[in-house]
Amino acid sequence: MDVKDYMQGLGRAARAASRVLARADTNAKNEALLAMADAIVRDADKLLAANVADLDAARAAGLDAALLDRLALTAKGVAGMADGLRQIAALPDPVGEMSEFAYRPSGIQVGKMRVPLGVIGIIYEARPNVTADAAGLCLKSGNAAILRGGSEAARSNQVIAACVREGLRAAGLPEAAVQVLETTDRAAVGELITMTEYVDVIVPRGGKGLIERVSREARVPVIKHLDGICHVYIDGDADLDKAVRIADNAKTHRYGTCNTMETLLVAQAIATSVLPRLGRIYAEKGVELRCCPESLSILREAGIPAIEATEEDWRTEYLAPILAISTLPGLDEAIAHINEFGSHHTDAIVTENYTRARRFLREVDSASVVVNASTRFADGFEYGLGAEIGISTDKIHARGPVGLHGLTSQKWVVLGDGQVRA
Amino acid sequence: MDVKDYMQGLGRAARAASRVLARADTNAKNEALLAMADAIVRDADKLLAANVADLDAARAAGLDAALLDRLALTAKGVAGMADGLRQIAALPDPVGEMSEFAYRPSGIQVGKMRVPLGVIGIIYEARPNVTADAAGLCLKSGNAAILRGGSEAARSNQVIAACVREGLRAAGLPEAAVQVLETTDRAAVGELITMTEYVDVIVPRGGKGLIERVSREARVPVIKHLDGICHVYIDGDADLDKAVRIADNAKTHRYGTCNTMETLLVAQAIATSVLPRLGRIYAEKGVELRCCPESLSILREAGIPAIEATEEDWRTEYLAPILAISTLPGLDEAIAHINEFGSHHTDAIVTENYTRARRFLREVDSASVVVNASTRFADGFEYGLGAEIGISTDKIHARGPVGLHGLTSQKWVVLGDGQVRA
Repeated sequence: MDVKDYMQGLGRAARAASRVLARADTNAKNEALLAMADAIVRDADKLLAANVADLDAARAAGLDAALLDRLALTAKGVAGMADGLRQIAALPDPVGEMSEFAYRPSGIQVGKMRVPLGVIGIIYEARPNVTADAAGLCLKSGNAAILRGGSEAARSNQVIAACVREGLRAAGLPEAAVQVLETTDRAAVGELITMTEYVDVIVPRGGKGLIERVSREARVPVIKHLDGICHVYIDGDADLDKAVRIADNAKTHRYGTCNTMETLLVAQAIATSVLPRLGRIYAEKGVELRCCPESLSILREAGIPAIEATEEDWRTEYLAPILAISTLPGLDEAIAHINEFGSHHTDAIVTENYTRARRFLREVDSASVVVNASTRFADGFEYGLGAEIGISTDKIHARGPVGLHGLTSQKWVVLGDGQVRA
Repeated sequence: MDVKDYMQGLGRAARAASRVLARADTNAKNEALLAMADAIVRDADKLLAANVADLDAARAAGLDAALLDRLALTAKGVAGMADGLRQIAALPDPVGEMSEFAYRPSGIQVGKMRVPLGVIGIIYEARPNVTADAAGLCLKSGNAAILRGGSEAARSNQVIAACVREGLRAAGLPEAAVQVLETTDRAAVGELITMTEYVDVIVPRGGKGLIERVSREARVPVIKHLDGICHVYIDGDADLDKAVRIADNAKTHRYGTCNTMETLLVAQAIATSVLPRLGRIYAEKGVELRCCPESLSILREAGIPAIEATEEDWRTEYLAPILAISTLPGLDEAIAHINEFGSHHTDAIVTENYTRARRFLREVDSASVVVNASTRFADGFEYGLGAEIGISTDKIHARGPVGLHGLTSQKWVVLGDGQVRA
C-alpha cells in the first residue's frame, strides 16, 4: 500500500475522531483510561513476551546497550504503565474550563474556554511505555493521537495499542482516537509531519537527531526540546550548605536526564570556599571536572583531579558524569554565560541575596528559572502537572514541562443579548 | 550589500536589543511610546508629504484603487497613529506578571512569570500605520521588532521609523529595538522568516497571497490568519428581532473585514419568518444573496432577488456585499457546516435555547464562538485587549485577537530553600 495513501487515511480518521473526542464527556474519557489500564494488566504476559521478541531482534541487529535498556520492559514497568493511565484518569479534565469572563462596555461578556488542539502526532524511539503515556495524555486532553514508535519496539507497541483500542471501545469512543502506525517505513514520518490538514501539532520525543530532523522537515507546528544544558550559579552570598547540596544533586542524582546540571558557575568571592568541598564530592562519585583556569587552580591546590575546559565544553550536554566549571566575577557574567551558552531549559541560582535572586529570575531566558533548589525539579510531576508529554524549550505555545494544558488551546467565548457593533 | 549579510546584521542587533528590552522597566517603555507619539505629531506634515510621494509613485506604477486607499494617510490618520501609541503606553505592562504560585509536596514553590518572546518579525503590505502600531505593541511587550512594510509605503514608513527611533533614544532604549527594513528586495523576506537564531516569531499581516507564502517558506513560527469565513446561525428558538439585528450588522456593518459574516445559516423552523425580513434589508443595502434551493424559494416567494449558490460559495470569503445563505434542519447540521466550510475564525448562534447555545459554544471549533451578538465584535479592542497585532486562526500559541499577551510567553519560576530531588 502506498505510504501517502495510508497516512492520509489515518489522518482523515484521526480528524473525524477528534471531533467526537472534543465533545466527549469526562466520564467516558476516564472510563476508557481505566479500561486501558485493566487490559494492560491482564495482558502483561503477552506484552512481556512481545517485548522479549523485540529485544531478541534488536540484539540480533546489533543495537547498542543504551537502546536495549530503553526498550526493555519489566513486570514492574508494565504495572507502572497501567498506574500512569489511572493517574491520568484522576487528573481534572482541562477541556471546557472557562475563565476570565468580564463584561465589556458594549454589553457583551467575553471570556475563554479551554479546548483540545485536535490531532497530535507523536514520534518517539525505543521506549514502549510512551505508547501508553501519550495515548492517555492525548485522550484526557480531548485530542486524537497518531503514534509512531521506534521500529525496534513494534511488537511491544502493537500489544499496547490493542489494549488502548479495547479501552476506547469499552467507553464507546472511536478507536481512531488513538492510532499506532503499523508501518515502520521512514517515509510515513515525512507524511505525518507535513499533513497540515489532518495534524495540528507534532511532539517528537527522543534523541537530538530525531528532533532536529522533525523540526527541519515539519510543516505542522512542533513542540520540542533539543538540549538540556542546565546551569547552577553559586552566588557570592550563597549559603554554603545549600550550594553544596544543590550542586551535588543537580549533577549526580541522575546523569542522563535533560534537567541535569552540565555547567557549574561559581562567583569568585566564594570559589575557594565552595569548590574544594564540591570537588571532593564529585571526585568520590567519579565525575570528571572540566574547568576554566581559575577553577582549575583552586581544585588542583586542593588536590582534586580536574582538566582544562575548552569553549566547546560550555556548549555540551554531556548526559554523563562530566561537569564543566567556570568561576566568574559575579551575577552579570553568570547571566551572560547562561543566556549565551545555555539551552534555555532550566537554570538555578543559589543565593541569600534578594535583589540578585530577583534579577536572576527576570533576566535568565530559560523555560525554568530556579532559586535555591535543584535543577532536577524541572519535571511535570514535580511541578504538579500530574503528567508530562515532554519539556519544551520553545517559547511559542508551551514552555517547560508540557502537561494536559500544553495539549490544549483556548478559544474566545462571547455572550450577548442581541448586541451589534456600532 | 548582500541581502543575507544585511539581514543577519539586523538579526544580531535585534537579538542584542531584545535582551535590554526584556529587563527594561515599564516607565522607560512608556516614555519611549509617548515620545514616539509626540514626534509623529510634530512631523505630521513631513509624514503626509512622504505619503503623497508614495501615492504618486503607486499611481504611476498603476496600482489599484483598493491599495491606494490602504496606503493613503490623512491628518486624522496621523493623529490616530499617535493616539494609538499613547493608548499602548496606558495599558498594563504584561512583562513580569507572576501567577499560579503554589507549594508542592517537596517544599518548592512553583509558578509562572510572563516574559517577552524575544524578536518579532512583522511583514505587512500597504498600510503605513502598521509601522507605528507594531512598533508600539512589540516594545510594550518587551520584544525587539524587525518590520518589513510594503515597498509602495517605503517613504511613509521611513518617516515613521525615524520618529520611533527618536522615541527609543529619548527613553535611553536601544534604537535596534525597532528596525524597519531599508531594502525592498523580496529576498530579505526569505531571510527574515528563516533566521531561527535571531527571530522568534513572524506575524504576517496582509492579503492571503502574502500569508500563504510566509507560512509555506518560514522556519520561524508564524502567528497568522488566513480567511475569515464567519457564520451566523439563526436557531429555531431565536428571538426574531435579535436575529435580524445581528445578521444585518454582521454582514453590512463593514464588508471588507475578516470578522464580517460571509454565510448565513437558518433553521428550517424559522426560515419563513426570518428570511423575508432579512432579505428586504439586504436587498435595500444592495447585498447579493446566493442561496441553497430552500432559501432561494422562500426569498423569491417574498419577491426578493436572489440566485442559486454553488458549493464554492460556502468556502468563499467575499469581503464584499455578497452573502451565502443556507437553510438547514437544525443545530447538528449548522455545526457540521461551520466546522467543514468555515475558517475557524468567528461564528455566532442566535438562540434563546440554553442547551443549544451551550452545545454551539463547545462544539464549534473556531477562535471565537458567539451567542446572541454580532461576529463584528471579534476584535482586540472590543475584547478588552487594548490593541491587537492581528487575529490568529491557528490553535497553537495565540488564538483569536492577539494583543500584548499574545506576544509573550510564560516561564516557570521555582522558589526553594535548598531543596534537592530525592
